[in-house]
Amino acid sequence: MKFVVTGCAGFIGSTLVDRLLSDRHVVIGVDNFSTGKRRFLESASKNAGFSLVNADVTDARSLTEAFKDGEFVFHLAANADVRFGTHHPHLDLEQNTIATFNVLEAMRANGIRRIAFSSTGSVYGEATSIPTPENAAFPVQTSLYGASKLAGEGLIAAYCEGFGFQAHIFRFVSILGDRYTHGHVYDFVGSLAKDPARLVVLGDGCQRKSYLAVDDCVDAMLHAIEVANDKVNIFNLGTDEYCMVNDSIRWICQTLGVTPELEYTGGDRGWIGDNPFIYLDTSRIRSLGWKPKLSIEQGVKRTVRYLVSNSWVFQAR
Amino acid sequence: MKFVVTGCAGFIGSTLVDRLLSDRHVVIGVDNFSTGKRRFLESASKNAGFSLVNADVTDARSLTEAFKDGEFVFHLAANADVRFGTHHPHLDLEQNTIATFNVLEAMRANGIRRIAFSSTGSVYGEATSIPTPENAAFPVQTSLYGASKLAGEGLIAAYCEGFGFQAHIFRFVSILGDRYTHGHVYDFVGSLAKDPARLVVLGDGCQRKSYLAVDDCVDAMLHAIEVANDKVNIFNLGTDEYCMVNDSIRWICQTLGVTPELEYTGGDRGWIGDNPFIYLDTSRIRSLGWKPKLSIEQGVKRTVRYLVSNSWVFQAR
Repeated sequence: MKFVVTGCAGFIGSTLVDRLLSDRHVVIGVDNFSTGKRRFLESASKNAGFSLVNADVTDARSLTEAFKDGEFVFHLAANADVRFGTHHPHLDLEQNTIATFNVLEAMRANGIRRIAFSSTGSVYGEATSIPTPENAAFPVQTSLYGASKLAGEGLIAAYCEGFGFQAHIFRFVSILGDRYTHGHVYDFVGSLAKDPARLVVLGDGCQRKSYLAVDDCVDAMLHAIEVANDKVNIFNLGTDEYCMVNDSIRWICQTLGVTPELEYTGGDRGWIGDNPFIYLDTSRIRSLGWKPKLSIEQGVKRTVRYLVSNSWVFQAR
Repeated sequence: MKFVVTGCAGFIGSTLVDRLLSDRHVVIGVDNFSTGKRRFLESASKNAGFSLVNADVTDARSLTEAFKDGEFVFHLAANADVRFGTHHPHLDLEQNTIATFNVLEAMRANGIRRIAFSSTGSVYGEATSIPTPENAAFPVQTSLYGASKLAGEGLIAAYCEGFGFQAHIFRFVSILGDRYTHGHVYDFVGSLAKDPARLVVLGDGCQRKSYLAVDDCVDAMLHAIEVANDKVNIFNLGTDEYCMVNDSIRWICQTLGVTPELEYTGGDRGWIGDNPFIYLDTSRIRSLGWKPKLSIEQGVKRTVRYLVSNSWVFQAR
């Protein structure tokens, strides 16, 4: 099959591209390299099945051209920054909502009708039911990021109804692993590299969060698009556990062999719109036969080891 | 209070403006007159408390200027066309989603923090629980219109969390009454004026729909913004009944005194994305002490009489 992957040079995108190529698929990768990294595509670039289009998902015309001959689109390109949404509200609108519209229109122009979309557990806002199932109560958004992903989901579902598309929508917890380039493990490892004696922690460290290893995430997506065949297929992706930020700090420090003084900024939220408890019910994707290979602890530790061996990802930012 | 009303020359907007002015508020009305009508503002224009800004909600700069000195924004401007979304998908994105973003940014630029928003029962998609409460299961969108209004709701809620806004979000059923200028009663009365002997009905006539009279709608909004004081206040607005399209046709024909041959196009949906059963649970707004004065039948008949006495609304389109 000929796949298009937007955000192909990103953390998850490049991992997916490598997997698709090793499964002998043809891949058209699209990235604007604003946060994606060329080094993540080193292996893919040597594969004859891979072609790269340097394009921005906010540029509808380039997308329409890039998608030519594609059969299935993985739309992963996004402003993935949850925390700083209020610093620049237009970014989530443009890079997530409008970009998703552009992707859908580029698909329509090219007769492509299958899409997989990286949504987020943030669309649940502060869920009242935890672990949160896909059919939880109608959510109230708490972040511009979540709102923009919800808008993307809505557009995609409307295209399924209106234009006969088929969609697989994945609501991710935070993803960890090799090539991980943002989020709390990245921030903590970067900070401890500079000063191993001291670590500033946003909030009180008791926020409960869920993580999933990137290989498990890619496994789940590829399995779901193969076996789930409704018009709109929506899946939470995560492990069936959560951890506290303090647990994660302990695993990070153990792996690095450091014992910093912890300075908490206080409060039960790390920032405006931070969700103090994220834990998704993943029984729907598990019922398809998928299960994660790594626990959160294993995922965090593996990520730390990757970052230590690849300190260039801190410089390259 | 100094209210801004976007879509002030529309059906609901102009009715709201007249009410606000009669309650001795000051009103800045914003409209681009693409579907709004100057005649609906005839009374308002004579009121010293009213000022009109001819601006398009997709033009962020004009909005920011128009909102100066406003204290509370009723954001009613929208592409209100549910049926033809797939003919021009960009309209819902631009006129509903992006426009709502522009409104929020114009509010932020002017230090305005209170907004009321006309959302729609269409955000529930094809609800599994009927009558549908505000906290129904996480919806799957079936129309570009619904998707764009859901995106607007999400943005507004995220601004409440991120920027300390307070919002009143109203999910309307179809609204009827004086100044009504689109929808099935408008279409049917217009068609029967041309040919009273024949009426084409989209679908099988058995679609079950809900309607609310515009004065009841305005009453509900003004009551809710006064007494509901959460950060994000979400209310279904409708009557606690529904009717079949065939019921409505009977009331229309009775009022007009015509007995047309009915031609059904067939199927349980009038068009792609048409929802065959819309019935909202309105117990939340009723618990605030509001209740509608007109039944659906009274609302339909009143609308027919308005259209007969104001046939100019058909020409003016």
